[in-house]
Amino acid sequence: MGFRYLTNTPLERAREDYINILRKNGLEPMPETVRAQDAAGRVSFRAVYARICAPHYHACAMDGAAIAASLSFGATETTPVTLAAGEYVPVDTGDPLPAGCDAVVMAEDIEPLEDGGIRLRAAAAPWQHVRQIGEDICAGEMLLPSYTRIGPAAVGAMLAAGVLECEVCKRPVVGIIPTGDELVEPREDPGEGDIIEFNSAIFSAMLRDWGAEPKVWPIVRDEAGAIESALREALSACDAVLLNAGSSAGREDLSCAAIERVGEVLCHGLAIKPGKPAILGYAGKKPILGVPGYPVSGILVLEELLRPVLGLYTGTAPGGEEKTVSAKLGRGLVSGLKYREFVRVRLGEGPEGLVASPLDRGAGVVSSFMRADGILSLPQGCEGLEAGAQVGVRLLRPESELHGGLVVIGSHDPLLDEVSDLLRRTEPAVRMSSSHVGSMGGIMAIRRGEAHAAGIHLLDEASGSYNESCVERFFPQGGVRLVECVGRTQGLMLAPGNPLGLGGFADIARPGLRYVNRQKGSGTRILADYLCRKCGVDASKVYGYGREELTHTSVAAQIAAGSADAGMGIWSAARLYGLDFLPVCTEQYDLLIADSAWDSPAVRRLLEVLASPEFKSRLTTLGGYILDKPGKLRRRF
Amino acid sequence: MGFRYLTNTPLERAREDYINILRKNGLEPMPETVRAQDAAGRVSFRAVYARICAPHYHACAMDGAAIAASLSFGATETTPVTLAAGEYVPVDTGDPLPAGCDAVVMAEDIEPLEDGGIRLRAAAAPWQHVRQIGEDICAGEMLLPSYTRIGPAAVGAMLAAGVLECEVCKRPVVGIIPTGDELVEPREDPGEGDIIEFNSAIFSAMLRDWGAEPKVWPIVRDEAGAIESALREALSACDAVLLNAGSSAGREDLSCAAIERVGEVLCHGLAIKPGKPAILGYAGKKPILGVPGYPVSGILVLEELLRPVLGLYTGTAPGGEEKTVSAKLGRGLVSGLKYREFVRVRLGEGPEGLVASPLDRGAGVVSSFMRADGILSLPQGCEGLEAGAQVGVRLLRPESELHGGLVVIGSHDPLLDEVSDLLRRTEPAVRMSSSHVGSMGGIMAIRRGEAHAAGIHLLDEASGSYNESCVERFFPQGGVRLVECVGRTQGLMLAPGNPLGLGGFADIARPGLRYVNRQKGSGTRILADYLCRKCGVDASKVYGYGREELTHTSVAAQIAAGSADAGMGIWSAARLYGLDFLPVCTEQYDLLIADSAWDSPAVRRLLEVLASPEFKSRLTTLGGYILDKPGKLRRRF
Repeated sequence: MGFRYLTNTPLERAREDYINILRKNGLEPMPETVRAQDAAGRVSFRAVYARICAPHYHACAMDGAAIAASLSFGATETTPVTLAAGEYVPVDTGDPLPAGCDAVVMAEDIEPLEDGGIRLRAAAAPWQHVRQIGEDICAGEMLLPSYTRIGPAAVGAMLAAGVLECEVCKRPVVGIIPTGDELVEPREDPGEGDIIEFNSAIFSAMLRDWGAEPKVWPIVRDEAGAIESALREALSACDAVLLNAGSSAGREDLSCAAIERVGEVLCHGLAIKPGKPAILGYAGKKPILGVPGYPVSGILVLEELLRPVLGLYTGTAPGGEEKTVSAKLGRGLVSGLKYREFVRVRLGEGPEGLVASPLDRGAGVVSSFMRADGILSLPQGCEGLEAGAQVGVRLLRPESELHGGLVVIGSHDPLLDEVSDLLRRTEPAVRMSSSHVGSMGGIMAIRRGEAHAAGIHLLDEASGSYNESCVERFFPQGGVRLVECVGRTQGLMLAPGNPLGLGGFADIARPGLRYVNRQKGSGTRILADYLCRKCGVDASKVYGYGREELTHTSVAAQIAAGSADAGMGIWSAARLYGLDFLPVCTEQYDLLIADSAWDSPAVRRLLEVLASPEFKSRLTTLGGYILDKPGKLRRRF
Repeated sequence: MGFRYLTNTPLERAREDYINILRKNGLEPMPETVRAQDAAGRVSFRAVYARICAPHYHACAMDGAAIAASLSFGATETTPVTLAAGEYVPVDTGDPLPAGCDAVVMAEDIEPLEDGGIRLRAAAAPWQHVRQIGEDICAGEMLLPSYTRIGPAAVGAMLAAGVLECEVCKRPVVGIIPTGDELVEPREDPGEGDIIEFNSAIFSAMLRDWGAEPKVWPIVRDEAGAIESALREALSACDAVLLNAGSSAGREDLSCAAIERVGEVLCHGLAIKPGKPAILGYAGKKPILGVPGYPVSGILVLEELLRPVLGLYTGTAPGGEEKTVSAKLGRGLVSGLKYREFVRVRLGEGPEGLVASPLDRGAGVVSSFMRADGILSLPQGCEGLEAGAQVGVRLLRPESELHGGLVVIGSHDPLLDEVSDLLRRTEPAVRMSSSHVGSMGGIMAIRRGEAHAAGIHLLDEASGSYNESCVERFFPQGGVRLVECVGRTQGLMLAPGNPLGLGGFADIARPGLRYVNRQKGSGTRILADYLCRKCGVDASKVYGYGREELTHTSVAAQIAAGSADAGMGIWSAARLYGLDFLPVCTEQYDLLIADSAWDSPAVRRLLEVLASPEFKSRLTTLGGYILDKPGKLRRRF
């Protein structure tokens, strides 16, 4: 299968044309009547007017006596006025003002007399201490204009004003049709070649957040007739349809053809990355969106194209609250000139403000969206940005969560995840964001002021010692502290039972053995390079020495899957995947902490967590760690 | 009934003590297992780990041929390598990588040969165009730490990682018990003395917004036994209980006594206004909050005390996203030294930034919360603030809604509500915020740069003309434009059938007649004062001349309710309430617009709306208006 010709339509133009054509075709809010109690969070379809006044009667606003104010005129401290028993009415707050009365005198200002009368020493102003009719709301008054989000107080105001039900904009029902021969429903043990269909769950959650109602169709095979009939069925039951193509190239051709048979295609192919193969179609006033199969592409296409269209169903401005913050770009980015590129970033509050660290740009990497704090948009025609550039980042989470957090960039160890969890469980919770870029990457991040802490395990080949001499070299002016974390055992991870019978590190050079490595700059790679030299292994001859993984866990995963025979890593990773482990050495994994962050509450919490019994217990469960005095300041530089 | 002794506990201390005691008593998150698909919007109860890798097999990332990369080594443009039919496997994107292969060559880089073999002119790097196992997520990796909000992408990541269900924090069930003899369920025609119970609807909507589950009890009468048994019942069924006392003074005594019988009271009486009589109680780890009956007090007590407590059920930071903006205070505020006072404000984007206009401070005025954009908190010990002071305002609506809106401050006319509705219905919708402070108030607001437009109808007694000469006087330097709006008939509104047989304005001086007036500074009051002088009426002798209402509608409401016999107002207000109307004069109601706002999109839209047939049609329905050329520029000053 080959691609049909895709256009490269700029996003803004496509969006505008799409909205205009849908509106021209009659897409507009539709009414639905709901009880006032159920209207919170909905959008008014038309203006709501008060039916009755609130209060709807003159209500006494104090406990005391209701009187005709004129009877008290002239009363002063020295010339009190006396009211006979029939000339006042005792009242409580909330009581209706008795007929003939137009003021309430507070109980504390009344002198009761023995004959049942009362004495007043001040004149009452007409209407004092009375909540007059309509004080809050007048009958006939407009409570809410059209197309307005109804909040809790508006619900109360409607009920107070006798409005028991109101017309709200109907929530659009959006059909989601997953297509693809290889798709299977979510399960715990998918077979090889099965792709778990999780996009519809992501899209459903997004749609609910945006006030729409998702309706998911069963998975449809890659067959033109099946797709067309699912599409027709969805169109008759829904207000809009998402046709979510499998991830195989050319798959959108089937979608596109199906849309053309039931309606029209405005545009196929957008100048955005990811998300390029999106299809903007419609049948009359109903949008049909061809959504690419990779989750990241799909999420972006929904954000950029469906969300603004959903505004048409509620008469509200396209899109929702989009908060943008300014941040310093952590590392340079290269971009294609032809596309507007969306890059997911993590945001950390470094010593000099927010720093945006770009995440994996693969369109298939759904975890990157989960970890992302924001989206950076590189406009079409932009070649890229240099590290340190000031950029605007659209937030994916509340801004408050960005502050007071802990940014850890450096070497990977599963213990960091446990620390992150323990920090969440402290009071108040600390949000930790960690990136695995290797020990050297961590040192650089601290130097650039982008991280509060870095996990490092760097062997000084000359001295044979860990960490201290390297830190000295990279921080000649000081400004950092080294905190003890753990000792850990590095070794070769091997298929269970060590089927190749490896005896030591030097055996990785055996012909036929498939090695899997860590990325350059990681402490484990530096260790492997050192061991090669020490053992006289020519690294360039080791098959797979250039195959780089970013974490101990992913190296273990490759060996467990049988696509590699050996790789260097820590004991806990091998254990997690049930691998054999050939210990090679014990190393010191420490945390480097910027002086500027030392006294922050987040770092204080971090040190407490490291020293806690919970940390010790969790690391014992992971296994392979030596805990001496985690959290102890080793040295200040 | 008298008040028990109330404490005046500072808010922060009360809140801290309350949270500490509840935590000490064991209030903590409780788990609930949900399907991953249903986890969006919930908070993780414990860390979630990946069960399988994603992808869980080596997947071809391109259509083409899978090969053992080593077979292609050495291939170049001039020294191609040929692979026989059995040495490669044709693959599509998403296919599992066939056994023995470790790379995919793209279809476009392959030369097919007649014998079924292929020719390659470049060496393949091992693992090129392969999505390796765990590229996205590795089995055993932590997907989410504890107490973390689960977003749409996290749902996708869980499903991709074989996690079909997860433990989330159970939503707390919060019981709401409305108490009060005078309370009735919402209805269209409450009797005199009935108070519609709408607080539970407001509180329920707030609780749902905060991730809790409301459970409303039937209204309980003011009887100690009944309250206690409802409270015991609610405590056994719920995780927290709100006891919402009626609005009568001393009512909390019943609540307080009931709480003391089933649990304990930490504090009764807070140094806040509104909200002072709140009761902070608990039974073991279950909070029991005594919430004052006035809706505004209740909303504030829930915001300030319940919301932070709800954080304990999800392990998240107390309170949610609280966005504060800086604004200039529109008018001065006086505050009691003894309380922290919360003032609801409208926010408008004036020419010089945001302006905060305080709204009605009555605790019973639920509509003020509906209209409020934010809350200004005056700390305990603060005597007040002067107009123009820079203040921080906690937002009640998305910040984006504050911008690009239209701020109209000045004389009241129901036509402004219709304009507001028509502006909402334009594309893009314009949000109009209007305050009724009379014509003179409007002129002052324009002078202070707090409003874009002001509705005015000001009679120049000397010339007998409307508006122009006054504007000239107050804007000697110019800077404003006067836009024609409508002519409207002012007159005396009277009870239906004119039972007192009034013949003209001078009759308001009749003995026994109860007049109701508009506030000083309003155009209608200025007109009434002028008419008094003209007709020789001694205003100080008119009963009720000092009774001031803020709108035409509320004057009409008083007459309709029979608490006044006559009041000055416009025909449409009289008609709305079915009143008799004695026309007195026709006046010109115009809009004064600041030059600085003239070219803004909102003002452009306003002028279009004024000139539209929809506006004409709506005003014809309201009645009593003369429409010549609404929206026409009358004069530039």
